[in-house]
Amino acid sequence: MLCSTARLFHSKIMESMGNLRRTHSCNDLTSADIGKEITLMGWVLRRRDHGGVIFIDLRDRHGLTQIVFNPEVNPEVHNKAHMLRSEWVIAVRGKVEARLEGMANTKLDTGEIEVFIDELRILNTSETPPFPLDEESEISDNIRLQYRYMDLRRPEMAAKLYQRHKAVQSIRTYLNDNDFLEVETPMLTRSTPEGARDYLVPSRVNAGKFYALPQSPQLFKQLLMIGGMDRYYQIVKCFRDEDLRADRQPEFTQIDMELSFMDEEQIIEITEGMISKLFKDTLDIDVAPPFKRISYDDAMNRFGTDRPDTRFGFELVDLTEIAKTCSFKVFRSMADGAGTVRAINAKGCATFSRKVLDTLTEYVAQFGAKGLAWVKMKANGEWQSPIAKFFSDEERAAMTKALDAEEGDLLFFGADKTSVVLTVLGELRLEIARILELLDKKSFNFVWVTDFPLMEYDDNKKRFQALHHPFTAPREEDLGKLESDPGSVYSQAYDLVLNGTEIGGGSIRIHQRDIQAQVLKALNIGEEEANDKFGFLLRALELGAPPHGGLAFGLDRLLMIITGSDSIRDVIAFPKTQRATCPLTEAPAGVSRKQLTELHLRPDWKES
Amino acid sequence: MLCSTARLFHSKIMESMGNLRRTHSCNDLTSADIGKEITLMGWVLRRRDHGGVIFIDLRDRHGLTQIVFNPEVNPEVHNKAHMLRSEWVIAVRGKVEARLEGMANTKLDTGEIEVFIDELRILNTSETPPFPLDEESEISDNIRLQYRYMDLRRPEMAAKLYQRHKAVQSIRTYLNDNDFLEVETPMLTRSTPEGARDYLVPSRVNAGKFYALPQSPQLFKQLLMIGGMDRYYQIVKCFRDEDLRADRQPEFTQIDMELSFMDEEQIIEITEGMISKLFKDTLDIDVAPPFKRISYDDAMNRFGTDRPDTRFGFELVDLTEIAKTCSFKVFRSMADGAGTVRAINAKGCATFSRKVLDTLTEYVAQFGAKGLAWVKMKANGEWQSPIAKFFSDEERAAMTKALDAEEGDLLFFGADKTSVVLTVLGELRLEIARILELLDKKSFNFVWVTDFPLMEYDDNKKRFQALHHPFTAPREEDLGKLESDPGSVYSQAYDLVLNGTEIGGGSIRIHQRDIQAQVLKALNIGEEEANDKFGFLLRALELGAPPHGGLAFGLDRLLMIITGSDSIRDVIAFPKTQRATCPLTEAPAGVSRKQLTELHLRPDWKES
Repeated sequence: MLCSTARLFHSKIMESMGNLRRTHSCNDLTSADIGKEITLMGWVLRRRDHGGVIFIDLRDRHGLTQIVFNPEVNPEVHNKAHMLRSEWVIAVRGKVEARLEGMANTKLDTGEIEVFIDELRILNTSETPPFPLDEESEISDNIRLQYRYMDLRRPEMAAKLYQRHKAVQSIRTYLNDNDFLEVETPMLTRSTPEGARDYLVPSRVNAGKFYALPQSPQLFKQLLMIGGMDRYYQIVKCFRDEDLRADRQPEFTQIDMELSFMDEEQIIEITEGMISKLFKDTLDIDVAPPFKRISYDDAMNRFGTDRPDTRFGFELVDLTEIAKTCSFKVFRSMADGAGTVRAINAKGCATFSRKVLDTLTEYVAQFGAKGLAWVKMKANGEWQSPIAKFFSDEERAAMTKALDAEEGDLLFFGADKTSVVLTVLGELRLEIARILELLDKKSFNFVWVTDFPLMEYDDNKKRFQALHHPFTAPREEDLGKLESDPGSVYSQAYDLVLNGTEIGGGSIRIHQRDIQAQVLKALNIGEEEANDKFGFLLRALELGAPPHGGLAFGLDRLLMIITGSDSIRDVIAFPKTQRATCPLTEAPAGVSRKQLTELHLRPDWKES
Repeated sequence: MLCSTARLFHSKIMESMGNLRRTHSCNDLTSADIGKEITLMGWVLRRRDHGGVIFIDLRDRHGLTQIVFNPEVNPEVHNKAHMLRSEWVIAVRGKVEARLEGMANTKLDTGEIEVFIDELRILNTSETPPFPLDEESEISDNIRLQYRYMDLRRPEMAAKLYQRHKAVQSIRTYLNDNDFLEVETPMLTRSTPEGARDYLVPSRVNAGKFYALPQSPQLFKQLLMIGGMDRYYQIVKCFRDEDLRADRQPEFTQIDMELSFMDEEQIIEITEGMISKLFKDTLDIDVAPPFKRISYDDAMNRFGTDRPDTRFGFELVDLTEIAKTCSFKVFRSMADGAGTVRAINAKGCATFSRKVLDTLTEYVAQFGAKGLAWVKMKANGEWQSPIAKFFSDEERAAMTKALDAEEGDLLFFGADKTSVVLTVLGELRLEIARILELLDKKSFNFVWVTDFPLMEYDDNKKRFQALHHPFTAPREEDLGKLESDPGSVYSQAYDLVLNGTEIGGGSIRIHQRDIQAQVLKALNIGEEEANDKFGFLLRALELGAPPHGGLAFGLDRLLMIITGSDSIRDVIAFPKTQRATCPLTEAPAGVSRKQLTELHLRPDWKES
């Protein structure tokens, strides 16, 4: 903070805009404007004094303009300009001139001109910024968040928020044009059965009762369909009180959609149109729908995950049949019923050093791998590998063939419980791609994952659990198996995966009361529990619910990918830290005892 | 609920959409479509059986179409149609035919045609609706909210949500075209110093700390301006935990805007463009800016309120000077320093009965009036009034002249403390307008109220309080009086009033640290308190804050006026009751002890 003398000085030199009115942004002026008298307002980015003339790069959200204070133009203004420092806010009036021959800056839209200033008003001063804005300096995340308003002045951050703005308008335009209604659903609502922990809001008027902030507007959008709204969307804040990981925020934004009288095919088609327009509008890229589709089972078998990154190969190959009869006990025991044996062929990676292989072995250990068997392919199909000796020539040949392996390739094997092998090899192929720098941020590979199982058995809880949520519709042809073999029932759910990230997902919902009852029964959700938690939805299903379905996209993640950011924090104006705090406003904060009392609560923490 | 036999029957007759795809909405078909084979999906609104033929009004959000089941077209389908009941959901395929001569329904867009059905699929059945949807029946608010999805199927409700959708898109289009960026601000934030009670959200990770849901994004939008975003908007949920009145909701939606490098005139101009487009887009009405302006002082003097309804006259007239010397003690004592004497002329209301006058006297009592003096104007300026005798001929003549009163007029007088007189006469003129039915919902009178006092003295707290909020900029010419006479300082604030309702308001903000300090001092907000509550904003003012200002509109109230609704509940999809509950989902609800413990809280209520 400034001392009081300095502050007095600053307050004395500040002026109002007076009758000056901005005529252009700092990115507008070109050689077409030469000779015009214009007014700009913005921030002093850089100042250079050269031969008695002061050059300033004036910045606003739109760009930069070079302004010039020349004593020959106006000595008084030139004198005043000597005071200007970084991040001072000024209004200037002057005349657009061509830059001297050879002095044009081709990197700037305004690079052909400069403005000779005849009037200068100092609208505000600034203390020395906490970090410089004009260079690619490494600033700690905490300082960036604490001075977020300074961070946002940096052109790359401003550009990201602008991309977000454009993205949101693109999506809205598309949905409006397709007859969707934007409808707001409540924020102060009831716990929805989404599985994650709710943020709660104590009610003052209703003692002992709490609202929950929505994890998603799932039930409300279904109610809107039952209310005949036909097509709904909302770009809406959702909340989850979970321990934060790198790309999670306690509040996040969802593009939420629901449609009536449409099947999975139609919903996928209309969604592809939206995504396609989004990428055109933000990145000017044609992503060319229809997108690829892959069933959940295929995704798991080929990529070890239901979020396959299809920008590169190294797909998983099932060697279980071959391994069943091999002499390597580790493989045979897994192939023979207890698990599975799979492998990937890292094409051309036989040059990986022993050190890299050790690092990879360590890397996959965190996903449950007890080791990592590898083979370097030599000439004539020869295996260089610690495990080569455990196999017959025929077995090696069969595996080589199954993996389409040739000289210079590197093969990795996994033999374990199926879930472990799939996870380990799935993560391994991603890690190899990272090492090889195959994850091109500029290529956008979309794939729909479809045909999910409706439910999966939870070994701990000894019961089936919905893979998505209990309102997801089973495939019609599987309805007969809901009671007899619920684990084999597939759903009408679909996720959209982009470069290995799930960016959205949804499903056809159950619209018939009796099918909802069957599914709840299979999920072991009793009538009482169901009525208590979402009885209003069950009741609504008895009063003329139309067939409907929808989906939701995570806007933050989508923007992170579109802007090529490493963190969703970069595409959120005021994000929170991993401890869910805001270094700028210092939220959350303490409250008074009176506030607690009004909410009928007592503290259960040690007060400092 | 249906008995199990009935439910079994219902579940047996339900079908899927199969390969049927909707080709039109229920409002699309006209005589231009005659002969086409089309597919509609929707709800059975009404069924009439006539001469062996079944006529059904099929409804969707867009409108109605008459569909016909004729045994001669398809006897099997005709037979199936016998099952159909109100609110069943069906898909039908058939051929568009002209209605018979003289049978056209000019009230419907589809009134010239009907569709002869060849294929019928029952997508869902419905139990008997809790209330009929096809008539203007009086339904209790609670039942409407409990079955909100049924209520929303009623065309007038669907139309209101559609108007809201259109309004929001109109506003966004305008702001996007004017270079505003839509930026999301946090929902989990810190208490803002807005004055109302916050909704609090306990933090699990940070024991003893709470987030507050925003009462408005005021500080964040200022920080966005300081961050160089130039022009910001957001259509955003805000929250106030106040005791609810008729047109208040615990969560409400705000059109929130902020602009840099603009003065009051420019902001008013850009806002008028938005409002003007809004009324054109939603109601096809030209509201013709520039809107009228009135200063706060004038509004109070002429209308007794800073939210003047200018659809009618009956303005307040100041009779204090005349009353100062009159013989009526009640008037003279007030005119002579303790208060004021004012009156309104209810033109042509001399016919009001004694009963109406008594009712009005009772009505104004709730606003603090100790009585209500009235005068019925007779021929030749004669007064018929209980108070006539207290005045001289000259005094009566002077007052008659000041009020521009003539035969047939009715005059009302107020003599009391100024604040009481203004409120009483302001409310009285509104009540008279209601009696005379002058409040035309179809006329839209806008007026900007400007030149508010910056602060007002709170007699209870014995200190000045900000009339808007502590970040409102004083008028430049008044800066010198901040210390010496803070009560006489005017602000750069402006409210937009429509038909007597404040629909929006805002101000130029303080962007200079030292002026902010002076205002805080005048408001008796100490440095410690200021730093604790919004130190981050004060710090930001030291780092290059541009001149900025903005405003916010209450979207719900605006839509209430646009749709001619009596309550904001009608323009909110899922509103809350006056006890802040949701009869549909039964929010707020109890939570488990475990949830409370995780949030470091203990109950302070009697558990049932």
